[in-house]
Amino acid sequence: MSLHGDYDPDNIFAKILRGEIPSVKVWEDEHVLAFMDVFPQSEGHVLIIAKQSQARNLLEVEPEVLARLTAALQRTAKAVEQALQPEGLAIMQFNGDAGGQTVFHLHFHIIPRWSSRELKGHGHAPMADADTLKALAARIAEKLD
Amino acid sequence: MSLHGDYDPDNIFAKILRGEIPSVKVWEDEHVLAFMDVFPQSEGHVLIIAKQSQARNLLEVEPEVLARLTAALQRTAKAVEQALQPEGLAIMQFNGDAGGQTVFHLHFHIIPRWSSRELKGHGHAPMADADTLKALAARIAEKLD
Repeated sequence: MSLHGDYDPDNIFAKILRGEIPSVKVWEDEHVLAFMDVFPQSEGHVLIIAKQSQARNLLEVEPEVLARLTAALQRTAKAVEQALQPEGLAIMQFNGDAGGQTVFHLHFHIIPRWSSRELKGHGHAPMADADTLKALAARIAEKLD
Repeated sequence: MSLHGDYDPDNIFAKILRGEIPSVKVWEDEHVLAFMDVFPQSEGHVLIIAKQSQARNLLEVEPEVLARLTAALQRTAKAVEQALQPEGLAIMQFNGDAGGQTVFHLHFHIIPRWSSRELKGHGHAPMADADTLKALAARIAEKLD
């Protein structure tokens, strides 16, 4: 998929937003959902998506949606940092499959980093156990401002 | 450098903002500077920084500064896409050196991607020729909204 094209209403995040497939939620409000990446590149890998936008990527997103997403990104990153105390945090946002994007609903990655641990490849990490993700989500949610 | 600590007023981006060392500007306004990464991971690698914040990272940045930075990020990404027509765009923002950060003044990377070209390593890419960067900056600036 290129940078230009139509939104696919059957992409996996659209299905999560419609409740057709499960996700492990960290928090949500009217506009934003923060949930655990089921193929985490590191422990505590969280995704941030907008609920009411059909933007596939950064080029398409409405400015007010982007502002809400990045405020949510900061709020969640702070909670991840407090809950898991990583040594670093990588924020990534991929556009187009040549840009590393695998799901074509705009999303931001929050990836905790520890210097002693290798990052697993994007799209190549093993699927995480749901109970492990739920426990991580609860620890992160507890630290939300 | 960890996620916590003091802002170093002699970091390289602070020196660029004070005009003590040169940079190849794409655009700027009162609040934001967009300039070419001198160690580009790909052709057209641009950095976005705030002028009036001493935030080292995403955890520390003032919400209104973050909102301006991400609006500038989108504006610049659109111009990069139009000017260079990459197949993808990777947005990265690193926090803490375990998170990949090398300059401790908050910044966002815009990295154009082509499926036929390998990404150069962050912090390991060769230094670019200033004239090449100036020509790229001019092509991108021409496409700004």
